[in-house]
Amino acid sequence: MDDDVPLILTLDDSGSSASAPLDDLDREELPNENGGSYDIINDASSPAAGECCAQQSSARHNWEMNYQEAAIYLQEGENNDKFFTHPKNAKALAAYLFAHNHLFYLMELSTALLLLLLSLCEAPAVPMLRLGIFVHATLELFALIVVVFELSMKMRWLGFQTFIRHKRTMVKTCVLFVQFIEAIVVLVRQTSHVRITRALRCIFLVDCRYCGAVRRNLRQIFQSLPPFIDILLLLLFFMVIFAILGFYLFSPNHSDPYFNTLENSLVNLFVLLTTSNFPDVMMPSYARNPWSCVFFIVYLSIELYFIMNLLLAVVFDTFNDIEKRKFKSLLLHKRTAIQHAYRLLITKQRPSGISFKHFEGLLRFYKPRMCVRERYLTFKALNQSNTPLVSLKDFYNFYEVVGLKWKAKRNREHWFDDLPRTAFLIFKGINILVNSRVFQYTMYTVVAVNGIWILVETFMLQGGNFFSRNVPWSYIVFLTIYGVELLLKTTGLGPVEYLSSGWNLFDFSVTLFAFLGLMALAFNMEPFYFIVVLRPLQLLRLFKLKKRYRNVLDTMFELFPRMASLGLTLLIFYYCFAIVGMEFFAGVVYRNCCNTSTVADSYRWVNHTVGNKTVVEEGYYYLNNFDNILNSFVTLFELTVVNDWYIIMEGVTSQTTHWSRLYFMIFYIVTMVVMTIIVAFILDAFVFRMNYTRKNQDSEEDNGIVLEKEISKEEVVGIIELYKRSSAATETTQLQKLVLQMDKYGQMSTVFLGRRSRTKSDLSMKMYEEEIQEWYEEHSRKEESQTPLQEPASASNSSLKPLSLRQRSQTVI
Amino acid sequence: MDDDVPLILTLDDSGSSASAPLDDLDREELPNENGGSYDIINDASSPAAGECCAQQSSARHNWEMNYQEAAIYLQEGENNDKFFTHPKNAKALAAYLFAHNHLFYLMELSTALLLLLLSLCEAPAVPMLRLGIFVHATLELFALIVVVFELSMKMRWLGFQTFIRHKRTMVKTCVLFVQFIEAIVVLVRQTSHVRITRALRCIFLVDCRYCGAVRRNLRQIFQSLPPFIDILLLLLFFMVIFAILGFYLFSPNHSDPYFNTLENSLVNLFVLLTTSNFPDVMMPSYARNPWSCVFFIVYLSIELYFIMNLLLAVVFDTFNDIEKRKFKSLLLHKRTAIQHAYRLLITKQRPSGISFKHFEGLLRFYKPRMCVRERYLTFKALNQSNTPLVSLKDFYNFYEVVGLKWKAKRNREHWFDDLPRTAFLIFKGINILVNSRVFQYTMYTVVAVNGIWILVETFMLQGGNFFSRNVPWSYIVFLTIYGVELLLKTTGLGPVEYLSSGWNLFDFSVTLFAFLGLMALAFNMEPFYFIVVLRPLQLLRLFKLKKRYRNVLDTMFELFPRMASLGLTLLIFYYCFAIVGMEFFAGVVYRNCCNTSTVADSYRWVNHTVGNKTVVEEGYYYLNNFDNILNSFVTLFELTVVNDWYIIMEGVTSQTTHWSRLYFMIFYIVTMVVMTIIVAFILDAFVFRMNYTRKNQDSEEDNGIVLEKEISKEEVVGIIELYKRSSAATETTQLQKLVLQMDKYGQMSTVFLGRRSRTKSDLSMKMYEEEIQEWYEEHSRKEESQTPLQEPASASNSSLKPLSLRQRSQTVI
Repeated sequence: MDDDVPLILTLDDSGSSASAPLDDLDREELPNENGGSYDIINDASSPAAGECCAQQSSARHNWEMNYQEAAIYLQEGENNDKFFTHPKNAKALAAYLFAHNHLFYLMELSTALLLLLLSLCEAPAVPMLRLGIFVHATLELFALIVVVFELSMKMRWLGFQTFIRHKRTMVKTCVLFVQFIEAIVVLVRQTSHVRITRALRCIFLVDCRYCGAVRRNLRQIFQSLPPFIDILLLLLFFMVIFAILGFYLFSPNHSDPYFNTLENSLVNLFVLLTTSNFPDVMMPSYARNPWSCVFFIVYLSIELYFIMNLLLAVVFDTFNDIEKRKFKSLLLHKRTAIQHAYRLLITKQRPSGISFKHFEGLLRFYKPRMCVRERYLTFKALNQSNTPLVSLKDFYNFYEVVGLKWKAKRNREHWFDDLPRTAFLIFKGINILVNSRVFQYTMYTVVAVNGIWILVETFMLQGGNFFSRNVPWSYIVFLTIYGVELLLKTTGLGPVEYLSSGWNLFDFSVTLFAFLGLMALAFNMEPFYFIVVLRPLQLLRLFKLKKRYRNVLDTMFELFPRMASLGLTLLIFYYCFAIVGMEFFAGVVYRNCCNTSTVADSYRWVNHTVGNKTVVEEGYYYLNNFDNILNSFVTLFELTVVNDWYIIMEGVTSQTTHWSRLYFMIFYIVTMVVMTIIVAFILDAFVFRMNYTRKNQDSEEDNGIVLEKEISKEEVVGIIELYKRSSAATETTQLQKLVLQMDKYGQMSTVFLGRRSRTKSDLSMKMYEEEIQEWYEEHSRKEESQTPLQEPASASNSSLKPLSLRQRSQTVI
Repeated sequence: MDDDVPLILTLDDSGSSASAPLDDLDREELPNENGGSYDIINDASSPAAGECCAQQSSARHNWEMNYQEAAIYLQEGENNDKFFTHPKNAKALAAYLFAHNHLFYLMELSTALLLLLLSLCEAPAVPMLRLGIFVHATLELFALIVVVFELSMKMRWLGFQTFIRHKRTMVKTCVLFVQFIEAIVVLVRQTSHVRITRALRCIFLVDCRYCGAVRRNLRQIFQSLPPFIDILLLLLFFMVIFAILGFYLFSPNHSDPYFNTLENSLVNLFVLLTTSNFPDVMMPSYARNPWSCVFFIVYLSIELYFIMNLLLAVVFDTFNDIEKRKFKSLLLHKRTAIQHAYRLLITKQRPSGISFKHFEGLLRFYKPRMCVRERYLTFKALNQSNTPLVSLKDFYNFYEVVGLKWKAKRNREHWFDDLPRTAFLIFKGINILVNSRVFQYTMYTVVAVNGIWILVETFMLQGGNFFSRNVPWSYIVFLTIYGVELLLKTTGLGPVEYLSSGWNLFDFSVTLFAFLGLMALAFNMEPFYFIVVLRPLQLLRLFKLKKRYRNVLDTMFELFPRMASLGLTLLIFYYCFAIVGMEFFAGVVYRNCCNTSTVADSYRWVNHTVGNKTVVEEGYYYLNNFDNILNSFVTLFELTVVNDWYIIMEGVTSQTTHWSRLYFMIFYIVTMVVMTIIVAFILDAFVFRMNYTRKNQDSEEDNGIVLEKEISKEEVVGIIELYKRSSAATETTQLQKLVLQMDKYGQMSTVFLGRRSRTKSDLSMKMYEEEIQEWYEEHSRKEESQTPLQEPASASNSSLKPLSLRQRSQTVI
């Protein structure tokens, strides 16, 4: 408790405006002039002038502004927002605050989604969702107006100058303008024209605050492009040479349709790059001369097995490099943000650190939802020294510590601890049973047996009429076992703890669905008992026993958000191509559409009679069309998978012009880029993780970051007192409960555990440990070399500060 | 010359057996007892006993033995042969020398190739090469007897004990035994039986000295297997779950042939893993219910895009790790070999280094082809100190230095320097022209124009009758330009220098072929003028202007040997599978063979009349058969490329049993392993190279290792004197020429340049610079900890040495 005394004193000093007289210390406790860029706007009266009370309230007001600005700095650091977008005056601040909360973000997101989803209902619409032109155009106009409103808020916050300089926002404005005009044109003409610009709607989604990861991915893709294009040129160069050679070699063979013109030769070698037409393209020449296979083997060896892998190597290398640079710049950006915030929070008297009072003030703006207890714990976790102040060095850990979720170390271990003795013993027994290895392995065995059972049973079931039977006894047996397991676990662990594990949740839902399926079967409804086949997925748990799988699964979960954002990025590309595809190719393929093309078979759909038998020839490829956006997505996925994509291409080409091939080829190259990036990402992530594991072989067991802090009763009481005096007593109810509980159990202190899951950034921090120190030193050297320029400015007039901030921010980018 | 005096004295001391009397120094100059394991065998008379002359000759004899053993150690270090295979006595040494020269290696290789090539002529033979059973069985027996001879030599060298312990040799012996019996059975029965064991013939090739790289690759593949199999299990696990799910979901749809039984479901999902049947497998269910595409999208996303990449990541990671460990063990093995050799070459009197006399003796055995001048230059290059001795520290660089090719720094710059003045000026002018940038860029432009010309012309040439025309003028113009360029370059640079560049050689042959093609065209023979389309490959040179391409091309050339060995490894796998395929599937597919299967169309070959038109349906897949080994190789390549491989599989399956699928699936998995390794290799090599370039951005321009050494005239004369006295005067003719030349130009010294191309090992040395020091220290610590065990043994009885060597070698492996 000793080192908390000054802290309480500080809070006491300026926090109790009603009672205590101001001492000298408090009178001077104005924000350090390094910070406080709103000073000029907020207090017309100079801090030095005026009487005691006015000065005090002005000081407090100043502090509030400082807290807010510091919180904004920290937010900017976290979100990697450049500091030149920092709000510069009170009006801008209001707009900033308006535009930076989840309600606004949600509005942004939903408008963007609405605009994107409109393509479901527009012209080549999904049949069920078709809307009148008037309806969807109005909806679009409405969404666009909301976007205009959002943009105007942004302009208000950024100011016109910065707004113009912000590239992404400018592009968005232009797109908005075009979309607006087109929407009005549609409304006026009451008919839809060719609107490829709809493909640009994605930008509204990309610009959303929640899609930051997508923006990063896109940036990474564009940064990887130059080396990618270099190698692509090499690839195409070889392709052209082989196309000419192939044309000369194979065109004398008239039964070879693949090389009869140079264009065909080029197209077929492009398709061969994807292996999609492989043995077929070789066959006519191979039938004539077996040695012609050499041409294809050499081509594939060079292009597919060498240059394509080279492409991956180059992208992987660039990716690696970019990842590291990105991590570095993010880290330094955060550091700068912390420095800015720190300067706003220290006082003239004590420039060596931040007191709890000011830290608490910061957190009130930075994380309004955080309760007092958590604020205090965060402060304690940051504070490495024995003084009541958090120094700059401690404060650098802000981002690592602020994300921790604090929980009191349980006194009650189980939910049934308070039950009567007999019940307690029974539940305790169940708990021990459920947690025992024997029980777990028994369940694994049951699951494995069930898996094999299902496999064998399904294998015996050669006919398709397995649904008309009665419920087989094995189903009931296994379901009963699962039911009992579920019951035991729920009672043994308590429902809350049971469901807090992902795997248990999975078990629970699979069992529930299986049960529902059984019910349905019993009542002769469409049965979905087979959902129980998902149960063998539980065996994945068995995989966790082995270290490699544990690594793989852990990495998978850790990287899931990033994977999802990559998926979303791919979807955005899909959307653009789908719109373009729909505008040009909607309705061009149908049954028997392409009887004159080389891929006619795949589109043929005839019932003809041969002898006395009806033969149905079903070529399903007419289903791979661009008739609406959902179909387009499926078609594009098929193109992504690449196999037999040329059938789709040739089908469309035979119905339109041969320039259509460009669309498909460009799509192939774009997906190749994105897919290569995805492969590079997975490769990088896993190799990184495995290196990490190899480096830290001892400390591999912990999953997540855990921090332990002890709070004594006196500390809690002290904080309550402080809050009471500062007329914020409502916030302390939780603390009072804590005191009551401590009293009840007769404890003098409670231990709290702070937890959070480990992120890629944590791993990187550990991996680059040594380099990070170098970066910091290099960074602070740069800072220092800029300080002489900046110091006089901040000393003379704080209105010059935004400029100096901007200067500093440029060193970070 | 000062520091060479003691060296010449040493040579003088014991080198001149005829003239100089022995001094004390020489009398004691017996091999250090650390070395000399042949002492006991070679001199029955103890070195201490006997008279002066006998002792001297015995000493020299001892030295010769030491040189030889040291050379063997160094060879073992270079080839990564374990030291326990070191020859232990004179008989073993003779066998060792017999089995370690290029003649023997060539015999090994040609026997192995003969055995492999026999499959061209055996039972399902290539029609043109069919041989009678008697003939090929006799050939086989002959080859096998040669192998027996080789093995017996090896046994003689290794001794029975070591022979038994050497795993690879044992396997080879067993295979040999089986092959022998089978060959005799074939000869006796006069008919071939199912001889799958022929697939094992590869081992004879793999065991060849020249196929060391293949052995290393195979080892690497086997080492990468455990993690690979882990992830493969995960892959198959998901496959089974999806197969069951797919069966339940889609088998009610009777028009869906892909999921009607569990076996089909499994097979089709396996094929789907390769994307080979992709949109087709989805189509029937997609036609019925559009949402069924979700099943396939989820399956492909998990299996193809996630786990398959994971596979690559894991293999890449393992590969990286193995490469580093391999480099480390090779490095330390070489170091140990150098230590062993060093101990055999130092004398009792001067244990601090090796004198030139002994070094020269070593090189006489290690590199018999090296001339005296080069030996001396190597010695000088090794010797970093000012003393005439090469210390152990210097000697560690042996392998880096011994590979250098030494050439006197040119006095005459051009081949025409000795011509008369006028001619000289003309040639000099041509030389300057040819080397000028303008000329080069002009030629690039011509090549580019020619490339575009060919492209455009070929594009215009829509018909196939382009060979009946006259020779077009553009051909003649370009050919003339190329001819003139060739002429200018040859005269300007001199034919030798012109053809020493790979690119010039390429230009030359392309131009020559084009010219021959033109001649053929003029004389109405089958024209092959189109060879000139290869000329645009010259544009690759343009690519060299850009740094990334330069890196790529350099890396490509540096890694070509490794790539070739990987290709050979793949071919060995092909061979095994081809033999098995031929034994089981030869002749099972033919035209119209598979009319009952699902892939009937691809095998259908009919001329039928519809109306009054003959329709030819050509399904060429019957060509993808296992009818002889060449066809099998092509078929296996098609299976490697993966696209449409299931058509081949289903065709064969429909004619045999459905167990045949196992063959194809196993082949797919094996090629997947090898291909993943190849991708990992390319990835690793390029990423490594790019990291290297990034690390050494300043010194990137040099290609190859270059060392400069100056020899003064006195040194040369001294060496000649020494050799004359040691009655090896014939070896010094080159040196005498050098002296004459120096006299002619009045130089006091000549500068020599040692060059060699840079290997991966050099790059690794530079990359791991810091770690290498750690390895060395760790290694020498281990050595030291073993020394107490070993010292008394070598002191008491040198016949115990092989054992101690063996102990040491185990620390290396």
